[in-house]
Amino acid sequence: MRQRTIRDRLLSLLVEYQPKFVSGEEISRQLGCSRAAIWKHMEELRQQGYEIEARPRNGYRLMYRPDRVAPEEINLHLQSNKLGQDIRYKEEVISTQQHAHQWAREGAPEGALFVAEQQTEGKGRLGRPWHSPPRTGIWMSLILRPPIPLTEASHLTILASLGIKQGIERVTGLPIQIKWPNDLMINGKKICGILTELRGEQDRIHYVIFGIGVNVNTPVEKFPEELRSIATSLAIEAGQTFHRATLIAAILEELEKVYEQYLASGFGKIKKQWEDESQIKGKQVIARTFQGTIQGIAEGLNSQGALILQTDRGWVPVLTADISLK
Amino acid sequence: MRQRTIRDRLLSLLVEYQPKFVSGEEISRQLGCSRAAIWKHMEELRQQGYEIEARPRNGYRLMYRPDRVAPEEINLHLQSNKLGQDIRYKEEVISTQQHAHQWAREGAPEGALFVAEQQTEGKGRLGRPWHSPPRTGIWMSLILRPPIPLTEASHLTILASLGIKQGIERVTGLPIQIKWPNDLMINGKKICGILTELRGEQDRIHYVIFGIGVNVNTPVEKFPEELRSIATSLAIEAGQTFHRATLIAAILEELEKVYEQYLASGFGKIKKQWEDESQIKGKQVIARTFQGTIQGIAEGLNSQGALILQTDRGWVPVLTADISLK
Repeated sequence: MRQRTIRDRLLSLLVEYQPKFVSGEEISRQLGCSRAAIWKHMEELRQQGYEIEARPRNGYRLMYRPDRVAPEEINLHLQSNKLGQDIRYKEEVISTQQHAHQWAREGAPEGALFVAEQQTEGKGRLGRPWHSPPRTGIWMSLILRPPIPLTEASHLTILASLGIKQGIERVTGLPIQIKWPNDLMINGKKICGILTELRGEQDRIHYVIFGIGVNVNTPVEKFPEELRSIATSLAIEAGQTFHRATLIAAILEELEKVYEQYLASGFGKIKKQWEDESQIKGKQVIARTFQGTIQGIAEGLNSQGALILQTDRGWVPVLTADISLK
Repeated sequence: MRQRTIRDRLLSLLVEYQPKFVSGEEISRQLGCSRAAIWKHMEELRQQGYEIEARPRNGYRLMYRPDRVAPEEINLHLQSNKLGQDIRYKEEVISTQQHAHQWAREGAPEGALFVAEQQTEGKGRLGRPWHSPPRTGIWMSLILRPPIPLTEASHLTILASLGIKQGIERVTGLPIQIKWPNDLMINGKKICGILTELRGEQDRIHYVIFGIGVNVNTPVEKFPEELRSIATSLAIEAGQTFHRATLIAAILEELEKVYEQYLASGFGKIKKQWEDESQIKGKQVIARTFQGTIQGIAEGLNSQGALILQTDRGWVPVLTADISLK
């Protein structure tokens, strides 16, 4: 487990006492540092948008906690072994994937997470743009180092979609559909996209980076006109907003469970679970691939993670495509 | 085709006239630049180890041409459309792969080549060290951008081994064996290793880098003791040294042919050609994989580039392994 900083622990203490006051003496005792040091960290929190009331005799009280996805916020909620134990955070980036790739090259540990409040040029599959307005969604990149050969890379998007689905459902209670290969939907509209990028050689993957974008609190009017019929947010669907850091923690925890299961017992169980949860089996599907359009009935996944379609010409494995239900 | 520099063209002219003199006037006319400029480039060549005799009435004559793998030397021999049309060159690097990865990220064009006289920490498959002493071998990294999905990445090592084999055979006349998946051998000893690294997402490969190491003029005594029974060089096997830049040009040309055929008509023909040339079909093979050892008779490649072994328990596709003949 990563060492919590003093600021992490200060915030944690304020949240724990909220809406009550906690005395400067108590903070000083629990954090093992001087009143002057506490005052300095308190000022830093205020600069980040936290409103903290200070009363000479009562101490400190947290009045307002901004919806930030900074490490100290995620850490307040996160119970994981590896995923998210090392977090880098920025207000605004071109794309979190770009930063994560660099970090991975420089030796980021398994589970390292890069997260930002805003992406100016977020990307989805095939370089397609991903709309990432400030402070309304989760825009993050997670680095893993699975000890698997390149040919099993397709497993990774499958297990990520399963873990992220379970994390979002745990917090929101909304029913999430998995759209193969890399999207999560509510009522047929996209709320999450996963971009799986990797570097490796034939025998092993050096690192994989999951780019994860979730539309959390985006109001309808913040979606560009052309996206409104195909994309939605958790807030629109639930009629309430969600605390993004809590959601990130849940996603990391659930994803870690699925990932650990995969490492321990292979793809078999993940595949079965995915097939159950995706409810795609037996459905008429149209798959648009680079080579053309394939129609058929979905039979499930094969051992490589390809979608098997039963077509007029027999079973066809589809490794990647844009799919739609007929 | 890349624009030749003045120095490229000057060297080309000197080589063309060798062992005769070419007048300063003629050079000036053909290169379209002043006598003073020519003198400057002549000095640069001398600093690189070229010996150029200058006689007031006869002009210039190339007396000695060092065995370098610099772009101007490769360009003297290279007839290709893309491969090697953009070359970066250094005397000594940690590893050419490292430089090529950076160049690829910065947008290197398809066919870009990074080549060095020496690697201090050259690497093979799985991070194994690759012995790369100065000026005795070919240590280079070739960047391609094939428009194929990640799942077809195994094709790339197959086509590279085929093209490189043909390039080396064309220049040396030596019979080269392909050892699946990524080595070339003479009389059972390694003369070339290929490291295929890539970056991509499910749907597409962003770039692939072939790290290519060829033991060209390495004398026996330059091989570390422990390598002498398993590695050899073209010079040891042929009893003569070879001009490395000529060899590089031939490798690039033959690799380009195979690659263009692959892009135009797919893996089918490459697979057939590889099976014919590798002569592995019908041989008893022991394959050491991460999961254990598999014994069987080689049946050839499947459509994904895996080696198919006929075992006691039926056909088994082997995606990567260290193999040896029984």
